Amino acid sequence: MTAHKILFLIIDGLSDRPCPELGGRTPLEAANHPVLNRLAAGGVCGIMDTIAVGIRPGSDTAHLALLGYDPHTYYTGRGPLECVGSGIRMEPGMIGFRCNYATQSPDGLVIDRRAGRIHDTKILSQAVQDGVDLSEFGVEFIFRSGAGHRAALALKGEGLGHCVSSNDPKKDHAAPHTITPVGDRTQDRKTAEVCNEFVQQSGKILFDHPLNKDRLQKGLGPANIILMRGAGEMGNFEPFEKKYGLSGSVIAAASLISGIGDAVGLMQVPVEGITGSQNSNIKGKIAAAINELERKDFVLVNIKGADESGHDGLAAQKKAFIEKVDAVLEPLLDIRDCIIIVCADHSTPCSIKDHSADPVPVLIYGDGVRVDDVKEYGERTCARGGLCRITGAGLMPTAIDLINQAHKYGA
Amino acid sequence: MTAHKILFLIIDGLSDRPCPELGGRTPLEAANHPVLNRLAAGGVCGIMDTIAVGIRPGSDTAHLALLGYDPHTYYTGRGPLECVGSGIRMEPGMIGFRCNYATQSPDGLVIDRRAGRIHDTKILSQAVQDGVDLSEFGVEFIFRSGAGHRAALALKGEGLGHCVSSNDPKKDHAAPHTITPVGDRTQDRKTAEVCNEFVQQSGKILFDHPLNKDRLQKGLGPANIILMRGAGEMGNFEPFEKKYGLSGSVIAAASLISGIGDAVGLMQVPVEGITGSQNSNIKGKIAAAINELERKDFVLVNIKGADESGHDGLAAQKKAFIEKVDAVLEPLLDIRDCIIIVCADHSTPCSIKDHSADPVPVLIYGDGVRVDDVKEYGERTCARGGLCRITGAGLMPTAIDLINQAHKYGA
Repeated sequence: MTAHKILFLIIDGLSDRPCPELGGRTPLEAANHPVLNRLAAGGVCGIMDTIAVGIRPGSDTAHLALLGYDPHTYYTGRGPLECVGSGIRMEPGMIGFRCNYATQSPDGLVIDRRAGRIHDTKILSQAVQDGVDLSEFGVEFIFRSGAGHRAALALKGEGLGHCVSSNDPKKDHAAPHTITPVGDRTQDRKTAEVCNEFVQQSGKILFDHPLNKDRLQKGLGPANIILMRGAGEMGNFEPFEKKYGLSGSVIAAASLISGIGDAVGLMQVPVEGITGSQNSNIKGKIAAAINELERKDFVLVNIKGADESGHDGLAAQKKAFIEKVDAVLEPLLDIRDCIIIVCADHSTPCSIKDHSADPVPVLIYGDGVRVDDVKEYGERTCARGGLCRITGAGLMPTAIDLINQAHKYGA
Repeated sequence: MTAHKILFLIIDGLSDRPCPELGGRTPLEAANHPVLNRLAAGGVCGIMDTIAVGIRPGSDTAHLALLGYDPHTYYTGRGPLECVGSGIRMEPGMIGFRCNYATQSPDGLVIDRRAGRIHDTKILSQAVQDGVDLSEFGVEFIFRSGAGHRAALALKGEGLGHCVSSNDPKKDHAAPHTITPVGDRTQDRKTAEVCNEFVQQSGKILFDHPLNKDRLQKGLGPANIILMRGAGEMGNFEPFEKKYGLSGSVIAAASLISGIGDAVGLMQVPVEGITGSQNSNIKGKIAAAINELERKDFVLVNIKGADESGHDGLAAQKKAFIEKVDAVLEPLLDIRDCIIIVCADHSTPCSIKDHSADPVPVLIYGDGVRVDDVKEYGERTCARGGLCRITGAGLMPTAIDLINQAHKYGA
């Protein structure tokens, strides 16, 4: 028997280091997760360096690598994917930025890098979109609000590079930087000029905007300067369906992840009540994934909450969330004709409160796998599994081979 | 004690996936193979991705990789190695093709891509060799019959590329394709022109050939068109002896494998009664290898039958053949002063009936190896071995290091 479909479940930031408050176990080791254990017992396990041994991945670079798109080729900065996640249709060659609305004092200092954690900035972004004019550079742009104080900017035009600095002073009560080219390339100089012009023109529009005048009167910081960072050039992603011959969907709350899915041509599946946090409708995600497998060959599901607990350093909360995830996974055991992959995109150790390069546990379950004797899904149990230690680049090819869609190299 | 010689035994297509008809064991796991087990128990084991994780190797690319010749550099298509295997002396830069004799109907359709499984085509190939003239292109050629309806063509001349299509319509009752350049390079255009001329001239010669007229009278399909595919440029292989400082031989029934050996400068050792199939004289191969080790530093032996059973999907036959192989391996245990490597070039799962990317089990036996506690040679037992998971590119360097012939990188 050979399966024909692939379900790829990425539990974001799942893995960890031993936590003293859990008696030296990791949250995954300490948690009760019978379904993950049944998948491990019926599958083949291993540990995985998403990018390479010792490389601490971002969620973006990790997901690219796991999908088989080498981040060294496809990732030049977070901006373009953030743009995609914000609903901007990015074309290859466009330059994308992550932006913040911030508050600038009359004497020119950035006094609040998040503009009083302003939310609902759509009216401001529309004013910037309508008012800023970059046509003297032959450049068009799209500027969109994101969650809270966040936004995204995309530039389109001839001769634009992506190697430019940020105007973000990175601390409050400091002057914004002038954006400069990194290196000596003409295209980067042009982008830096365009960016500085954008910041200046948008600043004027925001300074006079009624919403900001209103905020000032209410004692709130006006959102009167745009800080830009994460410049990157949109890559020319080979469509997933062409690359693997599989139709596919992505289910993720985080715009960065759904943006990556979108960039490679995976269809975004909306699910009610997903938040990318502890309270997300993860049961709905799994139901949607199973439903999606009825008509698609490949479904990627990202569940985010464990990563959040890791970033907050809350080992007990992380353990509890893992148990919550396991409780909604039981339907996976009834899926037929499908290879199921479960892994993390990176570790997020509670002791680090950030991503780490510790390898992640990975399991592959389904027809044809060489079932090993690992009975529990955990960081240390999986290290004794039949996959040994692999990199993220090998995961999709392995799954494609299992469903017998791999091309032979040679004869 | 340090050994001085290397015996490299490749059991083609040996490894597999769990087979329901063998109770969830692989043929290798189900088979009784005491000698392989003694080698495993006395050696160090691991699993190996011949090319890379998830890459499904051909026998040709796998053998190149295992011998330390990166297929990404040395492999442009199967043609050149097929030519070498057919006894054509290929020089770097020559363009090689795999060919079929086929039957073309009077209205121009290919009606049998194997010309009624014709065999003994030597007289036809000689007529083509004598009659076709490509001198207007400044091109010489060598055309040789292979087994059955197969043949090989090598082109030699200035300015020839290898990026050309095939004229094989890939199905019967279809017109042969015109051979075209893939891309826009001048050298590929020239090769395409030469190929089309070769097909046309050879077709005329074959149409009028007495053997074909005779076949027609007997109601057999005439071999009156040559189909060409697998174009590739012969690489500039660094000779094995120069690369490793070792004299070497190859023992293989398959012309593709002996051709690879020949291309890198391993001496082909003829053995009576070897067929590349279940009935091959494998005892003779092992005896010849041991004999060869008297005067050579390195001997590669390929045993093919297990691959054949995998392609045919016959798990019980594969198991039986593995037991047959094991039964002739006992003399290996008496070899002294030699590192013995046993592995497969790729898996050929009975459930897939083709090669797969599943890693192969590998064992290294002999003086100096860090003997691990793997007692049985199998896909899953070896995954717990001391070599962990390696790629094919690392195997020859490891063996060269064990016999203390490695060069230090640095001081």
